[in-house]
Amino acid sequence: MSEVMEMAVRAKEAKRYMATVSPAVRKNALLAMADALEQNSDDIVSANLQDMVAGTKAGLSAALLDRLMLDGTRISAIAQSVRDIAALPDPIGRVLESIQRPNGLRIMKMTVPLGVIAVIYEARPNVTADSAALCLKSGNVVILRGGKEAIHSNTAITEAMRSAVAAVGLPADCIQLVPDTRRESANDLMGLTGYVDVLIPRGGRGLIQSVVQQSRVPVIETGAGVCHVYIDKAADLDMAADIVYNAKTSRPSVCNACECILVHKDVAAAALPLIRQKLDEKKVELRGDETACAILPGIKQAQEDDWGQEYNDYILAIKVVNDMFEAMDHIYRYGTMHSECIVTEDYEAAERFLQQVDAAAVYHNASTRFTDGGEFGFGAEIGISTQKLHARGPLGVNELTSIKYVVYGSGQVR
Amino acid sequence: MSEVMEMAVRAKEAKRYMATVSPAVRKNALLAMADALEQNSDDIVSANLQDMVAGTKAGLSAALLDRLMLDGTRISAIAQSVRDIAALPDPIGRVLESIQRPNGLRIMKMTVPLGVIAVIYEARPNVTADSAALCLKSGNVVILRGGKEAIHSNTAITEAMRSAVAAVGLPADCIQLVPDTRRESANDLMGLTGYVDVLIPRGGRGLIQSVVQQSRVPVIETGAGVCHVYIDKAADLDMAADIVYNAKTSRPSVCNACECILVHKDVAAAALPLIRQKLDEKKVELRGDETACAILPGIKQAQEDDWGQEYNDYILAIKVVNDMFEAMDHIYRYGTMHSECIVTEDYEAAERFLQQVDAAAVYHNASTRFTDGGEFGFGAEIGISTQKLHARGPLGVNELTSIKYVVYGSGQVR
Repeated sequence: MSEVMEMAVRAKEAKRYMATVSPAVRKNALLAMADALEQNSDDIVSANLQDMVAGTKAGLSAALLDRLMLDGTRISAIAQSVRDIAALPDPIGRVLESIQRPNGLRIMKMTVPLGVIAVIYEARPNVTADSAALCLKSGNVVILRGGKEAIHSNTAITEAMRSAVAAVGLPADCIQLVPDTRRESANDLMGLTGYVDVLIPRGGRGLIQSVVQQSRVPVIETGAGVCHVYIDKAADLDMAADIVYNAKTSRPSVCNACECILVHKDVAAAALPLIRQKLDEKKVELRGDETACAILPGIKQAQEDDWGQEYNDYILAIKVVNDMFEAMDHIYRYGTMHSECIVTEDYEAAERFLQQVDAAAVYHNASTRFTDGGEFGFGAEIGISTQKLHARGPLGVNELTSIKYVVYGSGQVR
Repeated sequence: MSEVMEMAVRAKEAKRYMATVSPAVRKNALLAMADALEQNSDDIVSANLQDMVAGTKAGLSAALLDRLMLDGTRISAIAQSVRDIAALPDPIGRVLESIQRPNGLRIMKMTVPLGVIAVIYEARPNVTADSAALCLKSGNVVILRGGKEAIHSNTAITEAMRSAVAAVGLPADCIQLVPDTRRESANDLMGLTGYVDVLIPRGGRGLIQSVVQQSRVPVIETGAGVCHVYIDKAADLDMAADIVYNAKTSRPSVCNACECILVHKDVAAAALPLIRQKLDEKKVELRGDETACAILPGIKQAQEDDWGQEYNDYILAIKVVNDMFEAMDHIYRYGTMHSECIVTEDYEAAERFLQQVDAAAVYHNASTRFTDGGEFGFGAEIGISTQKLHARGPLGVNELTSIKYVVYGSGQVR
């Protein structure tokens, strides 16, 4: 039996136990985890130092090293995030529907944990605590499989959390970290149907695509976001410029950032200079189609592969379109069903766009950057689902649940 | 491009169109499909005759030939089932949640179609009409891939339905049948990520397992049901015998039939003779553990592989257990998370069982045979999901939907 398989067997046992645990115990476990992270701050920082030394030797970029780095302040922030998750309403045992049948059967559709959730992720060690807290809050057990860059940090964080949950009476194995960071251990996880109920990849497009392509275990796909803002002929152009500026520059590296704007030809000559003026503040590189280049002399000409490109950077593609339908066609062809926006004062056009564009979140007159668990009021999230099965959009604790039908009878037969 | 890939491209186009279609048009399409099935009854029966002749030559069993056979009455029943689906409340555009954020954003969580659903199934031609109706009712488009035994029947049924939907203005390609019934065409379907949004296998365990193991497209697993009835020491024994009789014999070939009973040792001597007496009416073969065999002399001794066996036949396994926990252990080990029942007058024990047993449906004092879309009040179903992701239990039209967040702003940025 592989090491990962042995872990999965233990996880499945821990999952059984979790089904018997009250919301109060789960909440206490999270609070104990948060305390333990702070109490073990020094150990976690020393472990992190090993990762930082190895990462520096391996030539990781400054940006990656920054994402990897932990200090007392960052650990407190991680602990606070765990406490915030603890404070969320309990997602388990909620009655979603109650059906009374003519034969007297009472059927309750009730939320239950998904079971064993495996999370495969890359460099950031905060994902370790965050994923464990979200999974436990929703009554699940978790198998964590982080990247090799953060293995010492992840191990220290996991050990602190395991001791904490054991101290409140939960099985330590409701949180496990795969110590082996070779590709094989991820592949093993992807094959554990019957043990792992769902696998969530958190990271770059390469990781996510490899999991989607290879996993036999059901996957919730997260991440890739090529988001567009369409500026309609009836748009308020100042509002449009503000929204584009926010959606592009407030955090270009995230999946809900805007990568491309589509501008109605009737307003392009007025809108584009306004938008350029705003974006110049952040030195955003613009890449336009022919018409955009004519309106904004000096900008770069967009190439075919600029459409549908997730720059994750201060770069924006611009296309001038003949009408809303051309904009929707472009989104259909190049979008990733993440977040799409229309800016317009024409409410009928807005409704048509909102109805016909197929994405996790569709916006009228607001920035795509709002597609986020916190901004939606869900609390923390484990990612943004861009698939349509099970959950779409921000994955909060409610999305980490399944349901069961509890049926009360008095001897009914069929 | 493979033939299946070409079909998927057409399906994806049709799906875009479906997003613009009103509930009334979808309903009319279903009514037109039902009419067309009846109007083309003679053609469908002739096509079916070709399948029957081929099936007889190929040596199909009488049971399989009966499932394959169509006549005017059966076609009318299929048409009626399509009309029943047409009459269901529209599942699309329902607002599941409406969130007002402090910044003024209004977020509506709204049901939308899943998109392109592929259904891979075996011999029964009624699945063709039924799947198409359920998918279209929920705003989806469907790619059907039936078995070779029913290819002529399926083709005739599909042609009738395609003409009908085209006549009401929908693209004919919202219903397509894969003409190639070789294994390769199913494999092609399983690889179409980005085109097929979900794949639903309907059929025997072999088909379902092969799809779960091979598909790159998200799958909703249906079907396998090893259901138990646990008879507690506080059970009403007459009720227990009625429930077991119903759960085992009303239709032994289906997934919600009972395969094994677990009887508390304190009541085994009283309960088992009652149960045998009832089951003798249908000549059910009993296979007991040692204690059961001692109580019911002459019954067969159960072997290890009787536990967890889906007999689909008039056979029942019997195990005497020391307490409810042993019963729950047995279910944990051998169940398929489909439907599990406790018979008891001890409501505290019942609650513990209902909470701790992990299955799509858990029953107190009622037959497992109620796990069914019709019996739950959902109307028709496309199967019973035994997985935890997306949907669990009967898959009605509401389970064939996804959601999208529609966000209304007035210029909000983050």
